Amino acid sequence: MSQEQMIVPASHGEAFRVKAGQHVLIENVYGNQVADLWALAADDAFETSSLDQTRSVNSNIFFATGMTLMSSRRRPMLTMVADSGDVRHDTLLCPCSRELYRQLGCADGHRNCSDNFHEALSALDLALPFTPASLNLFMNVPVAPDGTVDRLPPTTVAGDTVVLRAEMDLVLVLSACPQDVTPINGASRTPRDIGVSLHDTNPAEVTA
Amino acid sequence: MSQEQMIVPASHGEAFRVKAGQHVLIENVYGNQVADLWALAADDAFETSSLDQTRSVNSNIFFATGMTLMSSRRRPMLTMVADSGDVRHDTLLCPCSRELYRQLGCADGHRNCSDNFHEALSALDLALPFTPASLNLFMNVPVAPDGTVDRLPPTTVAGDTVVLRAEMDLVLVLSACPQDVTPINGASRTPRDIGVSLHDTNPAEVTA
Repeated sequence: MSQEQMIVPASHGEAFRVKAGQHVLIENVYGNQVADLWALAADDAFETSSLDQTRSVNSNIFFATGMTLMSSRRRPMLTMVADSGDVRHDTLLCPCSRELYRQLGCADGHRNCSDNFHEALSALDLALPFTPASLNLFMNVPVAPDGTVDRLPPTTVAGDTVVLRAEMDLVLVLSACPQDVTPINGASRTPRDIGVSLHDTNPAEVTA
Repeated sequence: MSQEQMIVPASHGEAFRVKAGQHVLIENVYGNQVADLWALAADDAFETSSLDQTRSVNSNIFFATGMTLMSSRRRPMLTMVADSGDVRHDTLLCPCSRELYRQLGCADGHRNCSDNFHEALSALDLALPFTPASLNLFMNVPVAPDGTVDRLPPTTVAGDTVVLRAEMDLVLVLSACPQDVTPINGASRTPRDIGVSLHDTNPAEVTA
């Protein structure tokens, strides 16, 4: 991965090695697309990103600029240092899975973020016997006062970007979510590509 | 474990084997005490209770009567069939840990729910290389419209109980939370015992 933009193809996953101090720019190329994100410590795949630790440290149920994604050992992994859409990213809901699409009445074989996570790890010769909770970038999940969650299309527009600074050496996994039953990837229910590039400094500051 | 009440001692953890169809009654003996809860499938410790799957299936960020705790493979594990306090139990925050108490300025060796989880598993000759998110029974974590979470004393009173029906054979782990820095276990910041008993039918219906 480099300053040149790489693509996470629609409905697929990719894993990338990122060094502490590097900045990851993630582009919502078409605006409608949710990107499920996980991080694993470079030296121990069992130290994964942890959304319960993340909510505890940030004292918030959403993820936004200035907040840090924490590991299962309560260590900082990735800090969001820029967000052109200034949205509240979801920390609450699970990555989609075979079981979810079965419950939604889809045929077997529907692509899903959980399998994308394991496929992407496998490409780096890594494996985990479970699927950690995901940080769901661009995903619009408002919460009502009674705690009910809704699943709405993203409010982001084509070209919106977030920048995450790595706080440790890690493996970053992204899945361009294949969900095409609910409107979580836009009213047209058409999964799209996500763009990714890696930078030595914050690219949002350079271009600002 | 039987119909006789067992005690999870203040600031400690215990693990119990529970069969599908059995009912677990958990008593907040002194009213102020949070109980962190995990479940593991009896035949595969890596299939753990999953709060992100649970929020997805119940479409709610809190846990209450009628809701089901789901596994990391989206299978039902435990359904809450009674709750004398009728409260909204927390699904959002992490179990406390060595790292948390270090950050709070406590001396090394402060008891914590994460170590309690692993100690309790070890007593059943089980082990996991990570700490899953916990369901935090009786824990009072209101969420403001901007997503900010608060940490307040429980609203339960002495003798309040919840009943959970096991939907599969599982290992149940409970920790009587040792937190004595924040008021999450009551304004007196004094961790207390939790009571547990196992029943073939719903004991709340029998005594109602």
